[in-house]
Amino acid sequence: MRPKNAFYAQSGGVSAVINASACGVLETARRHPTQIAKVYAGRNGIIGALTEDLIDTSVESEAAVAALKHTPGAAFGSCRYRLGSLTEQRAQFDRLIEVFRAHDIGFFFYNGGGDSQDTTWKVSQMVQGLEDPVVCIGIPKTIDNDLVITDCSPGFGSVAKYLALSLREAAFDVAAMKRTSTNVFVLEVMGRHAGWMTAACGLAADHEGDAPHLLLLPEVPYNEERVLAKIQEALRRHDHCVIAVSEGIKRPNGEFFSAGAKDAFGHAQLGGVAPLIADLIRKKLGCKCHWAVPDYLQRSARHIASATDVEQAYAVGCAAVQMALAGRNAVMPAIRRLSDEPYSWDTVEAPLCDVANQEKLLPPEFISADGFGITEAARRYLAPLIVGEAYPPFKNGLPDYVRLRNAPVSRKLPATVLQGWDGERS
Amino acid sequence: MRPKNAFYAQSGGVSAVINASACGVLETARRHPTQIAKVYAGRNGIIGALTEDLIDTSVESEAAVAALKHTPGAAFGSCRYRLGSLTEQRAQFDRLIEVFRAHDIGFFFYNGGGDSQDTTWKVSQMVQGLEDPVVCIGIPKTIDNDLVITDCSPGFGSVAKYLALSLREAAFDVAAMKRTSTNVFVLEVMGRHAGWMTAACGLAADHEGDAPHLLLLPEVPYNEERVLAKIQEALRRHDHCVIAVSEGIKRPNGEFFSAGAKDAFGHAQLGGVAPLIADLIRKKLGCKCHWAVPDYLQRSARHIASATDVEQAYAVGCAAVQMALAGRNAVMPAIRRLSDEPYSWDTVEAPLCDVANQEKLLPPEFISADGFGITEAARRYLAPLIVGEAYPPFKNGLPDYVRLRNAPVSRKLPATVLQGWDGERS
Repeated sequence: MRPKNAFYAQSGGVSAVINASACGVLETARRHPTQIAKVYAGRNGIIGALTEDLIDTSVESEAAVAALKHTPGAAFGSCRYRLGSLTEQRAQFDRLIEVFRAHDIGFFFYNGGGDSQDTTWKVSQMVQGLEDPVVCIGIPKTIDNDLVITDCSPGFGSVAKYLALSLREAAFDVAAMKRTSTNVFVLEVMGRHAGWMTAACGLAADHEGDAPHLLLLPEVPYNEERVLAKIQEALRRHDHCVIAVSEGIKRPNGEFFSAGAKDAFGHAQLGGVAPLIADLIRKKLGCKCHWAVPDYLQRSARHIASATDVEQAYAVGCAAVQMALAGRNAVMPAIRRLSDEPYSWDTVEAPLCDVANQEKLLPPEFISADGFGITEAARRYLAPLIVGEAYPPFKNGLPDYVRLRNAPVSRKLPATVLQGWDGERS
Repeated sequence: MRPKNAFYAQSGGVSAVINASACGVLETARRHPTQIAKVYAGRNGIIGALTEDLIDTSVESEAAVAALKHTPGAAFGSCRYRLGSLTEQRAQFDRLIEVFRAHDIGFFFYNGGGDSQDTTWKVSQMVQGLEDPVVCIGIPKTIDNDLVITDCSPGFGSVAKYLALSLREAAFDVAAMKRTSTNVFVLEVMGRHAGWMTAACGLAADHEGDAPHLLLLPEVPYNEERVLAKIQEALRRHDHCVIAVSEGIKRPNGEFFSAGAKDAFGHAQLGGVAPLIADLIRKKLGCKCHWAVPDYLQRSARHIASATDVEQAYAVGCAAVQMALAGRNAVMPAIRRLSDEPYSWDTVEAPLCDVANQEKLLPPEFISADGFGITEAARRYLAPLIVGEAYPPFKNGLPDYVRLRNAPVSRKLPATVLQGWDGERS
């Protein structure tokens, strides 16, 4: 049988290692030219398919593809774009199928989080029963670590490492300055609902009394009085207090602490909790308080990515192609943990229908009794995910990240209007 | 002659490499036991001397001292404490001399920025003509890079590297998300008056169009209209815009953009400009805007320190002791640049009186004509300072930083009250 082309796209908030998954997809596909002809990437995720804006990855050198493994961001562009309502969807799916047919696409690889796996699942449903089947495989990615079935989500380990490391470093700073200057430091951590990233900050502590002294997790109801009492206790015992706070903590009335604009998925755009908490501490306790909001720095910090995470991100990219070639469909490679120590894992299949639109929060047994820390069980789970450094190459003192050529594939279809998208062809 | 003890202390905001200078001091002193008996460190800077709170560094192992070279923060505690008015000063200097005599201190090494070199200079003046002379040597340190005479200040190169690298990484993130999500990103950079750190962000750009697209330097008067026009230009040309803004930019009325509390030196405590700029952009241009304030993360990021900076920090520590042993007094080792490319440098002597209380701003020839970028001359100056990686050792996925024993030296004097200091013995 003549080999078909594959479509690959990146979706949702990017990470330090989503390009490592892309590398896994491209390298594995290239090793099977009798089954996969070319890999076309969608420019800006699914939008690239809907607007027939495809990138021909076959023109990229082997070295460029290999360099994806150490490059943050999303090499082909990502998107926050949810497929429309059922009626709109019908038109959009028809359009997808039209594009797939026009470009002889037999494989659909979609790399993203829970929302994106929903897209993959829907596409797999729509193409069922077509004369020209399209194999649909999801590839997990989310710094939030909230995907179900998979033991962890590629992208998370690197953010976890960055945050635990940054908090440890900042804590050395605060400990040095505490007697005449700052004695409270607040680090704001991404994570809308799930506290995995905030929990990972707990890894910075090796010994009793080490920072962080408080975690403010989105899973734990915020209680100002208890928070202030805990901070005072830390100040009494350690002369300083280092706090990691999730951007997703809510006020007692259920509103986000820092409610702002909404993103394209209709989720609240958060950020800016740390200055509010710092202000509260300043006013109520009279401390000199510093705060940091690393924002995108945390999810793009490829320079200090977890080697474990890079390996897993690469592995799920490879596994996705292997599953497709093995005739599997509507599945996602998931990480399965075989052992905590020594840490070992492999990849297994997860049905997309079970992954789509699910969200895995921190389990109660990972949260300490007072709600302000993590348990030993959490440490056992988290610890292996940040192990190993996978430094990128440096040039002139800075990481030498790759920019692909991203050559467009010639269009074969008339342009269509895409709801909610203001790209060139809309 | 019987060897005397040395006093060493760390002062002002800490850095990723001030402990490398401490390492240089201790290792060099240990190699000259016939001239320097023990090195006593001041706990929390000069306060340790004033309160007779000394640390016996001789109990630290060679390995622990060597590990200082890769540990951020200030191993002995730092302080923001300026010596008092002339009358208070007299009492404080008498106290210093009393402590120096009680502990047989013949060498005073003070590691800090412009304010701290003023302290060193004053101490050197007060001990002049004493029967037991005390040799006073300053050791340069400031992330602000605003010390005069020295070509650069140890601590700056590492922050510069961290910032340029972080901005590059975040820019990859924004470039990937720009079509459906964030297309403006604002990174807030430390630096009260001098724009060196903000200028260093410019190193992230290798090619025309690369981020950062705007630098907002404290040396350039802020003009909202021009800033917004420049952002719109970047959006038009690149679909996204990455901005580095100094925490020290001022409103047209001369007030800091984000005026807050004051620190112990009476300087305004800043931070929080990025969210204000982001808010302005959101309102005026309707963009989705993200912002980051790395705060202490930038000055404690030892994991990605510049190898050049670490080497220079270590070198000035060594040179300080060598100058003292060579009979020099009231001087500070300064970095002298011998060549841009290949970069070469050595250490020379700077008189403390010329260094104290001076501030070196970005020269006009380093700022591009429009005020929003850096010139080639600036790049030539900055580029070598961030070269080289000096990774710390890692353990369980995190940097393995040292905590010293910090054993106290037995007190020999009655306690005194120290103005403005609420430590245990006040």
